Amino acid sequence: MISVNRQVRLAARPSGLPKASDWEVTSEPVPTAGPGQFVVAVSHLSIDPAMRGWMNAGASYIPPVEVGAVMRAGAIGHVTASGHPGFAAGDDVYGAFGVQEYALSGGEGVIKLDTALAEPTTYLGALGMTGLTAYFALLDVGRIREGDTVVISGAAGAVGSVAGQIAKLKGCRVIGIAGGQDKCGTLLDEFGFDAAIDYKSENLRTALREHAPGGVDVYFDNVGGDVLDAVLTRLARGARIIICGAVSQYNAGHVQGPANYLSLLVARASMTGMLVFDYQDRYPQAMAELAQWLRDGQLVSREHIVHGSVTDFPDVLMMLFAGENTGKLILALDHS
Amino acid sequence: MISVNRQVRLAARPSGLPKASDWEVTSEPVPTAGPGQFVVAVSHLSIDPAMRGWMNAGASYIPPVEVGAVMRAGAIGHVTASGHPGFAAGDDVYGAFGVQEYALSGGEGVIKLDTALAEPTTYLGALGMTGLTAYFALLDVGRIREGDTVVISGAAGAVGSVAGQIAKLKGCRVIGIAGGQDKCGTLLDEFGFDAAIDYKSENLRTALREHAPGGVDVYFDNVGGDVLDAVLTRLARGARIIICGAVSQYNAGHVQGPANYLSLLVARASMTGMLVFDYQDRYPQAMAELAQWLRDGQLVSREHIVHGSVTDFPDVLMMLFAGENTGKLILALDHS
Repeated sequence: MISVNRQVRLAARPSGLPKASDWEVTSEPVPTAGPGQFVVAVSHLSIDPAMRGWMNAGASYIPPVEVGAVMRAGAIGHVTASGHPGFAAGDDVYGAFGVQEYALSGGEGVIKLDTALAEPTTYLGALGMTGLTAYFALLDVGRIREGDTVVISGAAGAVGSVAGQIAKLKGCRVIGIAGGQDKCGTLLDEFGFDAAIDYKSENLRTALREHAPGGVDVYFDNVGGDVLDAVLTRLARGARIIICGAVSQYNAGHVQGPANYLSLLVARASMTGMLVFDYQDRYPQAMAELAQWLRDGQLVSREHIVHGSVTDFPDVLMMLFAGENTGKLILALDHS
Repeated sequence: MISVNRQVRLAARPSGLPKASDWEVTSEPVPTAGPGQFVVAVSHLSIDPAMRGWMNAGASYIPPVEVGAVMRAGAIGHVTASGHPGFAAGDDVYGAFGVQEYALSGGEGVIKLDTALAEPTTYLGALGMTGLTAYFALLDVGRIREGDTVVISGAAGAVGSVAGQIAKLKGCRVIGIAGGQDKCGTLLDEFGFDAAIDYKSENLRTALREHAPGGVDVYFDNVGGDVLDAVLTRLARGARIIICGAVSQYNAGHVQGPANYLSLLVARASMTGMLVFDYQDRYPQAMAELAQWLRDGQLVSREHIVHGSVTDFPDVLMMLFAGENTGKLILALDHS
């Protein structure tokens, strides 16, 4: 019987790229479930670019992680003990359980997983926030239409790889931007993109001119910086840019604003920020559609699973910022 | 009888702020009207920030003015001779007649002015592209609603001053940003803005926090640069930013991209470029509404008229970039 709950707590607010010493590992007894509560043994942690933003002080769309608090993370696990009428020991669940081995929950924002439908880790990938973000960003904010030319940056990443497949399913021509020939090969071979651009070895503007001769109708931006500026030079009339993230900028001291933003005027285009949480009411419908695509083999949920313990969290997060993952990066906790 | 048509032609593409030597004054005989043509004696030239962009090489929403060509300008005048069935000598007209004393036209894009409805110069102001830009930008792109907090930059300028009044007519709270106490006084006293911020003497972020405590629902941006970045820090959830121009950037060597653009994500906000030409089908309806407001005294069309000749064009355009105008800047040609 394990009686210790190891936790990774924020120790300092990083400037620039985080380092291991920005967190500290602490231990406390495994919590016990009171009335209306349950205990989750965390099995898999979702490793997300947004984590970097949560470490900064100041108001954003969500309060920052306080120094001394358990690092925020989406996670899956199974219920080990419950005093909550809605959850029973053995249930597989998703929630914001944080970077720790055991979480005590009152059920807020916790989803029970249907493991007959898909593997639990799929609920961190295509059936989780990852897939939902791609789904609502493209369909609602991007308003993709059959025949549109859609460009996706961070295309081999968690959200990008699902987004490209959804755009293909909807009849779009899809161009992915990723770092390295391996990732670009995966975009074409595994995810079915029509074209892939390796931003590390190719001239982005030249490649965009070649692959999107009629201009870009929808741009799904996960990276910001020079890539955003390059795509801005190639917008079709009425283009929609979805600002989903800016991973190239999160660790920069100063955000590089898009110098080519006046292309919005020339192209009568829009740039719109999106957060998946705004679509909570529609998660069930979207998950049903995503699950159908998965069952039909039209959608691949690729997860990049690293096995370790909570103490490996800083290293795995660094893998993300180094662009070492393809698909959804997950830290699987081998309880021992 | 004047037989010479003085013209201002583009002599060189400027880098940075234009200078007088970027144009040259030439003379040619006053044109004569062939079949399907008419001659316009130009009386008033519209002086617009967009002129700077037209001087640059390269594709934009409209082809550049070629070196050696008559400088493009919207203008009003009266028909002196006509071989065109739709236009007669004596008609007052608006068109892209250029910086010259006489223009030969085939009628493309020319509008006959109803001078019983308003003074001819009003057709360069509230009843012209100026007013139409403000109208469609706010109502269509900005989707202003009663109770919205609307911020307008370049607020004492041609488009800004009309936009502020339209937003007030629609029940919004309107905050104008302008340079100098005189302009700010005019915003409050003449145009009925609820608040005015002098960006030259006030801290923009502090002033925005004070005047828009609940955040900015709609931002009408005519200037770009630091002002855009300041407003980006104060967006309300779901805010709409209208990119109508960026006069602070037109003469800069390098455009300053909005470093705070990730606020679009935090606020689930959008930034959309607009060009009035896209709304041509609806000009008549919009002009009827604008004319009604003018008649009712609910809308003031302020024109800043400088008297001179076509040779004064460079100096008057420089007035615009120096921010010396309040309302619509017009060069009235005193034919002599």
